[in-house]
Amino acid sequence: MKNIISSKMLKLIITAYIFCFVITQSFSQTKTSFLSAQESDPIKMGWMQGFPPPKDKILNAADGSFFNFPALRWSVVHMRQLMPTVNVSRGLQAPSKFSYQLDTHIDSIQFLPWGAKNKMSWAASLWKNYTDGILILHKGKIVYERYFGALKEDRVHAVMSLTKSFTGTLASILVSEGLLNDNKLVSYYVPELKNSAFGDATVRQVMDMTTALKYSEDYADPHAEIWAFSAAGNPFPKPKDYRGPIGYYAYLETVKKAGKHGEAFGYKTVNADALGWIISKVTGKSVAQLLSEKIWSRIGMEQSAFYQVDALGIPFAGGGFNAGLRDLARFGQLILNKGNWNGKQIIPQQAIEDIEIGGSKEKFAKSDHPLLKGWSYRDMWWITENAHHAFTARGVYGQTIYIDPKAQMVIVRLASEPVAANSNNDPWSLPAYNAVANYLMNKK
Amino acid sequence: MKNIISSKMLKLIITAYIFCFVITQSFSQTKTSFLSAQESDPIKMGWMQGFPPPKDKILNAADGSFFNFPALRWSVVHMRQLMPTVNVSRGLQAPSKFSYQLDTHIDSIQFLPWGAKNKMSWAASLWKNYTDGILILHKGKIVYERYFGALKEDRVHAVMSLTKSFTGTLASILVSEGLLNDNKLVSYYVPELKNSAFGDATVRQVMDMTTALKYSEDYADPHAEIWAFSAAGNPFPKPKDYRGPIGYYAYLETVKKAGKHGEAFGYKTVNADALGWIISKVTGKSVAQLLSEKIWSRIGMEQSAFYQVDALGIPFAGGGFNAGLRDLARFGQLILNKGNWNGKQIIPQQAIEDIEIGGSKEKFAKSDHPLLKGWSYRDMWWITENAHHAFTARGVYGQTIYIDPKAQMVIVRLASEPVAANSNNDPWSLPAYNAVANYLMNKK
Repeated sequence: MKNIISSKMLKLIITAYIFCFVITQSFSQTKTSFLSAQESDPIKMGWMQGFPPPKDKILNAADGSFFNFPALRWSVVHMRQLMPTVNVSRGLQAPSKFSYQLDTHIDSIQFLPWGAKNKMSWAASLWKNYTDGILILHKGKIVYERYFGALKEDRVHAVMSLTKSFTGTLASILVSEGLLNDNKLVSYYVPELKNSAFGDATVRQVMDMTTALKYSEDYADPHAEIWAFSAAGNPFPKPKDYRGPIGYYAYLETVKKAGKHGEAFGYKTVNADALGWIISKVTGKSVAQLLSEKIWSRIGMEQSAFYQVDALGIPFAGGGFNAGLRDLARFGQLILNKGNWNGKQIIPQQAIEDIEIGGSKEKFAKSDHPLLKGWSYRDMWWITENAHHAFTARGVYGQTIYIDPKAQMVIVRLASEPVAANSNNDPWSLPAYNAVANYLMNKK
Repeated sequence: MKNIISSKMLKLIITAYIFCFVITQSFSQTKTSFLSAQESDPIKMGWMQGFPPPKDKILNAADGSFFNFPALRWSVVHMRQLMPTVNVSRGLQAPSKFSYQLDTHIDSIQFLPWGAKNKMSWAASLWKNYTDGILILHKGKIVYERYFGALKEDRVHAVMSLTKSFTGTLASILVSEGLLNDNKLVSYYVPELKNSAFGDATVRQVMDMTTALKYSEDYADPHAEIWAFSAAGNPFPKPKDYRGPIGYYAYLETVKKAGKHGEAFGYKTVNADALGWIISKVTGKSVAQLLSEKIWSRIGMEQSAFYQVDALGIPFAGGGFNAGLRDLARFGQLILNKGNWNGKQIIPQQAIEDIEIGGSKEKFAKSDHPLLKGWSYRDMWWITENAHHAFTARGVYGQTIYIDPKAQMVIVRLASEPVAANSNNDPWSLPAYNAVANYLMNKK
């Protein structure tokens, strides 16, 4: 069998890369040294500054370089300038206000990074993890908030795969409302997926990513399915010799099965897009519109958010969401409050409890996440299964909404790590979150 | 001399068309019959509805068809979904509230359209002019507000050349503040334009469009400069054989002179982009950032606005602005109030008075605007020079901010006319505005 990739196709693939914001925990990258967080500060680096900017400081989607580190650090805060997007309206009401009770001690909290011999401070961990913005809520009050690099309080940041937790939450809401039956087959809701791998999977298997799909997100492999998916989703004009599917949905129809559904957790972005399609078939609304109606316009968000879209205007439910730091914190607090916002039940309590229940640890253990021992995955949230019952939404460059119910704590982190794998920052972030949780719990 | 346009180049040109939102008063279009406003309602037509939308209802920027009537009627409310854009932040404060004093009599106000024998009602004129949204302020209160088609109160609409009046207002502010000297040559501020037609023009000549440029905006002519300008500004990847300038600025450097500056008004979009460049050189900020800082974040706008951008991230100062109906009304009221908003001077009074003064009627008369007899043009605003001293910002599909100081009235209209020329709707809009002004002035 011949595997010929034309130069045009290759170019498309390279361009497509930039539209693909997905976690690949299995991403294997050669260890190289990168500029530090301080050195790679996107403002200091001068990206897109000047009228016009100097040639070597221009970033745009016409070539893929804007998503290479360190340019990436500018781009994650300027996605709208780089590609077509669809609004998630905050509505027109006044923003809700947070109470502040800033705690300067947090910076000096010490924790032991996984596999390290020496402790590190919380403040140092922020630089180590290329943090762009970080906010800690304790009992609903902001105790810590900082911005780095190109992020400001009135800007938004790409959250990549953290998007999936929004998709999963919307689906969980629909299940709670009785509009979506998670025991039904995907093909019941999306007949177009009947002959794909998704056809005989249940909605629940998609929601928990226990589908068995022939789908690789290994960026190192030029034949990995991720490239075809990205090319399909790329909203820019396609090269003449492009023969692949156009749009996320058309790609999903081509996904093949590999094994038996329901046996193991397999983290694959296309599940989130299939779920987005199911949601839209059930509601008649895009995930962008539904997210606005259910949440974004109802708890006093400060900024409208957005999704990147494909050429059919379909939001990228697997990784295309962008939002502000404080608004992500509002969302996190809503989840911590089991859907209640200032005394009003905004989304069903049951939808959140279904997340907190967690998924199957056995099925999770069959996947390749050596750092996340004992975890599970449910409704597109990562469940730590730790003593605090913490659970988290995660994006590929270290973006996080980390919810610790026992500590009544929400951490939101926006980041732009040089390496596209959370395994690269987990050792310096997860124990740090836990240390802050313990500090806050024991605070007098 | 050979004039060969390759098929790729032609494709680029066609794609480029969609990035070109400019008034061409001289636009000569064969009279054809179009679907009525009711028939062309973009919701009823089903554009981009469904998951996925049917093939014949898909609109995207990969081909240029999205900007043909009637698809245009959907697209003007969804520009962000079609191309890269840059935010004009409203800030994070609560929106300001309007008082309402709705007047249902307005619908039945009669006026005589220019050249007509029979009177028409205000309500009928809205359909005649393919109105998407209309709002009338009288003494700062909303007396009339309606939405049609795809526009909603929480959505924004492309305003095309109305953008120029924002550019001109920003420049007038900078002149008032003493940061910009309108007697200086353009090349003083933008050395890159020294060898272009703009080099020996004064800033004032650019602000009032009395430059003498070899630049045609005649869409019917495949060799018109507008095509090269549009191709340069198109943010999408360029075809391999593209050899033209990349970005608005690079194009401006190529503009040639035709005649003597300062003698006649000549409506050419490139003046607004040259002015945008001057503004950015003077302030170190893009027009998007400056508009946010000076106005959009200071008077309680409800929605952030945006500009479309070129591949260098430069906002299209000649026609790329998009904003909400009520926010455009807030801006109009700010202008009517000579920069004062609830007792606070937001922008210098002098900046607005410089607009109201008007331009040279003699120079205006030398241009081809047979319907606008006796008008002038100043700071990129159209000055009616009528008894009410009304002046107006105008976009090519009938978008308007119409300010009538004597009647203490602001009308904002968003529209998507089938014909890209205000001469096509002026006979049914300008006398209608005047009739409403007279009604409001004489209202007890």
